[in-house]
Amino acid sequence: FILSIRLALEETDENVKAKSLFNNSTSLTREDGLSSCARQPAVGAAPKAIRSYVYSRPPPWSEALPSIFVITPTYSRPVQKAELTRLANTFLHVQNLHWVVVEDAPRRTNLVSNLLEKTGINFTHLNVETPKSLKTPFWFPSQKARGTLQRNLGLHWLRENFNTTPPPEGVVYFADDDNTYSLEIFEEMRYTKKVSVWPVAFAGGLRYESLKLSPAGKVVGWKVAYDPKRPFAIDMAGFAISLRLILEKPQATFKLDRVKPGYQETSILQDLVTMDELEPRAANCTKVLVWHTRTEKPGLGNEGKYGFTDPRMEV
Amino acid sequence: FILSIRLALEETDENVKAKSLFNNSTSLTREDGLSSCARQPAVGAAPKAIRSYVYSRPPPWSEALPSIFVITPTYSRPVQKAELTRLANTFLHVQNLHWVVVEDAPRRTNLVSNLLEKTGINFTHLNVETPKSLKTPFWFPSQKARGTLQRNLGLHWLRENFNTTPPPEGVVYFADDDNTYSLEIFEEMRYTKKVSVWPVAFAGGLRYESLKLSPAGKVVGWKVAYDPKRPFAIDMAGFAISLRLILEKPQATFKLDRVKPGYQETSILQDLVTMDELEPRAANCTKVLVWHTRTEKPGLGNEGKYGFTDPRMEV
Repeated sequence: FILSIRLALEETDENVKAKSLFNNSTSLTREDGLSSCARQPAVGAAPKAIRSYVYSRPPPWSEALPSIFVITPTYSRPVQKAELTRLANTFLHVQNLHWVVVEDAPRRTNLVSNLLEKTGINFTHLNVETPKSLKTPFWFPSQKARGTLQRNLGLHWLRENFNTTPPPEGVVYFADDDNTYSLEIFEEMRYTKKVSVWPVAFAGGLRYESLKLSPAGKVVGWKVAYDPKRPFAIDMAGFAISLRLILEKPQATFKLDRVKPGYQETSILQDLVTMDELEPRAANCTKVLVWHTRTEKPGLGNEGKYGFTDPRMEV
Repeated sequence: FILSIRLALEETDENVKAKSLFNNSTSLTREDGLSSCARQPAVGAAPKAIRSYVYSRPPPWSEALPSIFVITPTYSRPVQKAELTRLANTFLHVQNLHWVVVEDAPRRTNLVSNLLEKTGINFTHLNVETPKSLKTPFWFPSQKARGTLQRNLGLHWLRENFNTTPPPEGVVYFADDDNTYSLEIFEEMRYTKKVSVWPVAFAGGLRYESLKLSPAGKVVGWKVAYDPKRPFAIDMAGFAISLRLILEKPQATFKLDRVKPGYQETSILQDLVTMDELEPRAANCTKVLVWHTRTEKPGLGNEGKYGFTDPRMEV
């Protein structure tokens, strides 16, 4: 039989309804001056006839499922496009995922704008530059400022967009652009009451960091080697927060000042939840479904002083 | 409306027909003694009624499209599962993709077997261990033996399986497990007559390596800094070979002996094609659609002498 592939979004009634949920209030300009910076959730039309098949990326939006708002801070570097490409390839499998990409840059770049547009993913594209005074040198392991303002802007966008309408069911996840995400992790976090938690591989100098559970399945501590006395010894990739909780506690943000290394996560979680309220996922924290991978800086030594390759070619 | 998600494969007539194309002849055993090591191409059933929607990964197999046989050598290391996970997430978007995963190991591991089974991808799982005498130390940059026997076993499997039936239209691509692949690259290679070629980012110490084209669009040389006098100065990720050509030239394999660094690709391509027969893709080699990324070895210093984490937990 003939297989019809349609990647373009259709303007169905449901689509228009879904769009009205997301009034993008950002007014920042792109490098190229275009104002569009978001693709709103789309609802795929049902097949019109038996034996026709519609394959779409992402899967069609469903009113019945809670949404997943993934906030990703990103910054310009040689591997940025590669990282965002494979991240998009993962997120494009996940239903009702809305990707909030926040560039650490003085303006939204064409590279990121075009990538987001072309993938067909549901997204919002924002930017805020980390002031030089907050930046730490790359060899400083804590990197306290990296991503903080960007994650907070993502939270601000959520609070701005869902302040009047009754908020949809949903969850907020902070996904750095170099980590590796299984598809299962999104289904683990989708139904989160307050804050759900799970193990993260390659964090804190370990194969994985995890959580200590009581026989009844409550979180009672942290299986970590690095500073286990932290109020919340959880990696950024190891928790998700319900959208309602984010909206109910507008003062909860990542703090910039006097945050010791490893305390970024604590700085927001202590405003939202107590340890015994955490909801363990991933089969009672016995499965690794997310990996804190890091990508090597590529060697570009043969470019030479004046550049060997064409600088106009986007990489 | 209700969205129905079905990830299980259905035994349709088309499915059985597709299966008969792939007689897996490998008899090697898995760690757990199970004999199954392949998921054969499946054809998704058409929706049975209007307003039901079937979302499947991978997209349904189509008789009308050439197949893509991706040969991936892989070996055990901390980030192996993470790498294969994000690779699968990319390949699961591509129609008619069959993944030939070849482990450098004395037997097929449960980690790789289970991952392949769970993704639902079309795959064949093979293994061959590189003898110690061929292995080079990790700090030796040429790594001449890594992946060579594994790629050749993948080619052998193709030649075994398509030696009697008229071969289907298809293309063969060697995809290492740490690179980053756009979805577009697979559509660029799908219709390959002999050998198609395109730029690769982060190869040879450059932002990208590419090809010199004549005004008529023929390949006339190599835009590389490293040893441009090689007969084929192309990275492993920068070309794909038609299945028919692989079958017509059974002597074409990757050579192990006396292959200088950077000459692996030449060692097979010179048996298959001449420079002027190469088919430039990716908008006349002006787009980067694949990146030679490398993943950092994770720091596991806090595991200590006896291991901090549970060794039974798969990472």
